[in-house]
Amino acid sequence: MRARVDFRSDNVGAVSPEILKALESANTGPAAAYGEDDWTRHLNERFSGLFETTVTVFPVATGTAANAIALSTLTPPYGTIFCHEAAHVHTSEAGATEFFSGGAKLTLLGGAGYRLNAAELDQAVASSGRDQWHRAQPAAVSVTQATEFGTVYRLNELAAIGEVAHRSSLRFHMDGARFANALATLGCTPADMTWRLGLDALSFGATKNGGMNAEAIVVFTPELIKDLRHRLRRSGQTWSKMRFAAAQLIAYVEDDLFLRSARQANTLATQLAEGLARIPHVTVIAPVEANEVFLQVPPRAIDWLAAEGFLFSRRSPDLIRLVCRVDGSEEEIRLFLAAVQRFMERL
Amino acid sequence: MRARVDFRSDNVGAVSPEILKALESANTGPAAAYGEDDWTRHLNERFSGLFETTVTVFPVATGTAANAIALSTLTPPYGTIFCHEAAHVHTSEAGATEFFSGGAKLTLLGGAGYRLNAAELDQAVASSGRDQWHRAQPAAVSVTQATEFGTVYRLNELAAIGEVAHRSSLRFHMDGARFANALATLGCTPADMTWRLGLDALSFGATKNGGMNAEAIVVFTPELIKDLRHRLRRSGQTWSKMRFAAAQLIAYVEDDLFLRSARQANTLATQLAEGLARIPHVTVIAPVEANEVFLQVPPRAIDWLAAEGFLFSRRSPDLIRLVCRVDGSEEEIRLFLAAVQRFMERL
Amino acid sequence: MRARVDFRSDNVGAVSPEILKALESANTGPAAAYGEDDWTRHLNERFSGLFETTVTVFPVATGTAANAIALSTLTPPYGTIFCHEAAHVHTSEAGATEFFSGGAKLTLLGGAGYRLNAAELDQAVASSGRDQWHRAQPAAVSVTQATEFGTVYRLNELAAIGEVAHRSSLRFHMDGARFANALATLGCTPADMTWRLGLDALSFGATKNGGMNAEAIVVFTPELIKDLRHRLRRSGQTWSKMRFAAAQLIAYVEDDLFLRSARQANTLATQLAEGLARIPHVTVIAPVEANEVFLQVPPRAIDWLAAEGFLFSRRSPDLIRLVCRVDGSEEEIRLFLAAVQRFMERL
Amino acid sequence: MRARVDFRSDNVGAVSPEILKALESANTGPAAAYGEDDWTRHLNERFSGLFETTVTVFPVATGTAANAIALSTLTPPYGTIFCHEAAHVHTSEAGATEFFSGGAKLTLLGGAGYRLNAAELDQAVASSGRDQWHRAQPAAVSVTQATEFGTVYRLNELAAIGEVAHRSSLRFHMDGARFANALATLGCTPADMTWRLGLDALSFGATKNGGMNAEAIVVFTPELIKDLRHRLRRSGQTWSKMRFAAAQLIAYVEDDLFLRSARQANTLATQLAEGLARIPHVTVIAPVEANEVFLQVPPRAIDWLAAEGFLFSRRSPDLIRLVCRVDGSEEEIRLFLAAVQRFMERL
Repeated sequence: MRARVDFRSDNVGAVSPEILKALESANTGPAAAYGEDDWTRHLNERFSGLFETTVTVFPVATGTAANAIALSTLTPPYGTIFCHEAAHVHTSEAGATEFFSGGAKLTLLGGAGYRLNAAELDQAVASSGRDQWHRAQPAAVSVTQATEFGTVYRLNELAAIGEVAHRSSLRFHMDGARFANALATLGCTPADMTWRLGLDALSFGATKNGGMNAEAIVVFTPELIKDLRHRLRRSGQTWSKMRFAAAQLIAYVEDDLFLRSARQANTLATQLAEGLARIPHVTVIAPVEANEVFLQVPPRAIDWLAAEGFLFSRRSPDLIRLVCRVDGSEEEIRLFLAAVQRFMERL
Repeated sequence: MRARVDFRSDNVGAVSPEILKALESANTGPAAAYGEDDWTRHLNERFSGLFETTVTVFPVATGTAANAIALSTLTPPYGTIFCHEAAHVHTSEAGATEFFSGGAKLTLLGGAGYRLNAAELDQAVASSGRDQWHRAQPAAVSVTQATEFGTVYRLNELAAIGEVAHRSSLRFHMDGARFANALATLGCTPADMTWRLGLDALSFGATKNGGMNAEAIVVFTPELIKDLRHRLRRSGQTWSKMRFAAAQLIAYVEDDLFLRSARQANTLATQLAEGLARIPHVTVIAPVEANEVFLQVPPRAIDWLAAEGFLFSRRSPDLIRLVCRVDGSEEEIRLFLAAVQRFMERL
Repeated sequence: MRARVDFRSDNVGAVSPEILKALESANTGPAAAYGEDDWTRHLNERFSGLFETTVTVFPVATGTAANAIALSTLTPPYGTIFCHEAAHVHTSEAGATEFFSGGAKLTLLGGAGYRLNAAELDQAVASSGRDQWHRAQPAAVSVTQATEFGTVYRLNELAAIGEVAHRSSLRFHMDGARFANALATLGCTPADMTWRLGLDALSFGATKNGGMNAEAIVVFTPELIKDLRHRLRRSGQTWSKMRFAAAQLIAYVEDDLFLRSARQANTLATQLAEGLARIPHVTVIAPVEANEVFLQVPPRAIDWLAAEGFLFSRRSPDLIRLVCRVDGSEEEIRLFLAAVQRFMERL
Repeated sequence: MRARVDFRSDNVGAVSPEILKALESANTGPAAAYGEDDWTRHLNERFSGLFETTVTVFPVATGTAANAIALSTLTPPYGTIFCHEAAHVHTSEAGATEFFSGGAKLTLLGGAGYRLNAAELDQAVASSGRDQWHRAQPAAVSVTQATEFGTVYRLNELAAIGEVAHRSSLRFHMDGARFANALATLGCTPADMTWRLGLDALSFGATKNGGMNAEAIVVFTPELIKDLRHRLRRSGQTWSKMRFAAAQLIAYVEDDLFLRSARQANTLATQLAEGLARIPHVTVIAPVEANEVFLQVPPRAIDWLAAEGFLFSRRSPDLIRLVCRVDGSEEEIRLFLAAVQRFMERL
């Protein structure tokens, strides 16, 4: 009998009951459209409290929309955005940033642990050809927190990047598809991980952590707001019944739901990584600091695990990604570890 | 005491309980992301049944996204799209079509009853300069059904437009933000009002008729599908938890919910129009064939009605728009009519 | 024997010998590329003298490039540009402005004599929905001087438009494809017709008036320069051997060549119009204030004139455009007038 | 006394007298505009002869325009174009390809000798995620011949790339800014180096080899023509007096002028490289196969050479680029070699 244990992605998961319940609560009589309703107003207040500063929150449908449209306000069409070569905005959004920006480029950098590195960024900016009109102009830097490989920037690393950005007149953006997971790991406040480091705008993820179908752009730099509002409207990202997005996002942070959910997913990933560390001949290729585990195993093991009913994403012949979710369970971790153990022993 | 009767728009309304319930039902264990789940598969089957032909359905966040991204597959970037000068794609989407298409133009036509007219379209195409490289190239025609002013195309009118489109190698698009309202009025089938007339793609509205936060592009012409899929992904319109959009749309058409809701809204609008017809010195400026009433009254009356707590959208100093909703009531109609009557008598 | 008298357009004409000669003079030893050469430096000085203020001049290949790229710096991608419905940027540039701007719209206005009218502009701006995010945002106004129908704005008309633009925070652009013809008619200075009226940027035409293959954007508002420079480079409009464009433009204004040429073309057009006024049953439909004559004659006359070898552009079954050029002759005017006279007498 | 020997770039050079003369010859009476003239017709015939197949030639203002607009017809807006990481379209065109394509990406590859390598391309295409909607879609490959570092693809290398392109449904583009230099080196025919290898479109350079201000897109695949024509018009690249571009390009190939000029420049570069090879402690970092020499020397030598009046482009603290031109001389080579020799001896 097949296991049906699903580690494919955090976006295969269920929606937290609190969020569904919030939709029902928001379904009262008529309410003003396009974000002029009480829920959206409350969302801005709630997030301003959460971030300990006045922020403006724009709910959007997807993380790609959040990233690409936020970035389009941070660069001229002839600009370039510095990011890691593993960045989701580069690898997995079908050119959304190039499209929404009107043709801006991404300048790809390396960096250990799948994290940008302030020194490398500094050097890249220095050689990027500012004011040389043959070159795309340095405009912004984008980091992913937690990263695409489940690692987490330390605050001093982000601060160093923020310092380069500030000194080099770059706007600073964070792809926070797994913002909560990083926050749970670092144990700092949202303010500490964002505007206090110089961040201009944050793609605030919810979907991967028990959300349903709304993410948000959180803007820390007021002068960006007006431009962004118009860009979102013409990008088809301004819901008329905005309250049903706002309500989701309010519920997501209420009583620290987002943190509690992220902690749970992170804990499962840590258990998974610790278990795998005890099995010979398998390698976890990146430090597990959020809810993702990248596992190097022989191709035959991958085939066998798939045949046993385990679901995961295959990244190369001998590399798989395992993502833990708030609605996952320790039992699933045990089942998987046991299966890997079993297979490796037979080798 | 203020009335709080809300005629501002159909998108201020509540969500039909069936749709909220469907979200809960869809919230089971993990499901494949990005539309490879069972709900999205079922959505395609369900709509193929509804439209009596194989269609492909792409859920999107908003009507603007549906219109602009659908149109971007129907025109080259140097094309032009024929539409009515009152078309939502021209007046109220902040240039979304120009943006998503990469710079295509809209060629604005008149037409009685806020409807395009096949003869005028034919002439406009003839003088549009096909193959003349100084001119944007004729590429598509877009109609809104029901129109922005609450009128409804008759099937023979649409057929005539479809015939011009076919003869002139124009793609044919329908903005169906109020598709159900038009269908309820005409009493025809979805097939009769779409692909049987030569339609290539439909923006299928739900939000204005008891939906929550998902609309759809329905594609009738298979060769458009691949291009559209990639465009949607990079436009940030491909939800990872797609099932929660698919489930809404399935519930929306289940047991003809969409038609029943539209009929109710249309009926209220008709009652409103009939009542207004009996009041002297006020004019309903367009035939009420769906759920919208455009009322010409003295500016003082408008101010007074607003002060009395009636909510509506003011279109010019002496013109207001009143939109009826499935979650409106006959009592509201009575209250409004009585108020207008009262004011006009005092004049 | 056929006449081969060519009134098709001013761009069918020859290049002034002074301009070709300037190319030879510029063909000395090596010179810095991309506009850092002495000719381009001199161009800026020469035009700053001509316009009695410091201007920055960007040579470009075509008038469409000048218009569309200049306008792209004057509007956000979600903006709208007010222009006459007969404007070349709308009718004859294949959507270039929509493209280069990233999707901005053109808002078309009427206006007698094919000229915008400050009052109508004022009203259009007022109803354009500033800060309403469903609407393209009012950003700029573009006038064509001389207009597409050979009429010329008076200075007070332009000043009134400039006043509306200033008061409404619109940028102000002039399509000066026939700038010299208008200047010759008004007898004012370039400064009087441009920045003194609040103009931000001018598309400075040369090709239609004896030029070869370079036009220019003349920028009066310094803050636009940096953005424009980058936009031009990535638009493929920054010649490496820029001196051969600069040399053309310098020669074009040297010793008032541009004005002398324009006066000659205008004079021919006036003679043509005066002659036509004496012929019964033909109508010149717009005041002839530059070098274009729009003539309404019976379709049969048009066919006959074409058969006789006269070349012109046919605008509708009974309307032709006749354009006079610096390299045209009075003899050609006489031939054409005699032919029309002959045909109309036979009727 | 300073030497004023200029190796900065081939685009600092003079225009071949034959080309200037052709402009004068083309300056006869009126001629049809926008490329419907005899010169442009002849250009197409002449190039069809040159390439031994029917080609369509579109003159454009710059190499960037040629590259970016040609590529925009070879990729959908959500596509990716494979090119070398040193490719001019990536490093030096300010994002023109991203802009004109509507947001397509460039996928950067390595490759010895600054040349793409068929095997690496093959692998990159294989892992590019065709039909995966999160990924930009593989659409085209672009090679530069001669390369940005003065090396030249051998015909079998290009054929292997063409084979991958064909097998993988990629369009094949060549940036031929130094097409003639490569042709001169290989001694093959234009046909051998282009369509016989599967090329769809060629950016045909002239400016760097004695041209003035016109380059061309040469199209081998007829189905691209219509789309390209419209794109060029709206990109402001369709000159009204097209004959003055056509005449330049005709003169450029007449009597093999382009080949003779390229041979001369190549010969000078070879002499330079050979001379440098005899000087100790300086290194030519790439094989000199066209007209460019990349020289690694101590920074102090660079400063001294500059102070002596030699002009070149500095690429890094110890790397300079020296470009030889048709209007350069052996005397200049001798002067430079002597200077380097002198400096190195003093060390």
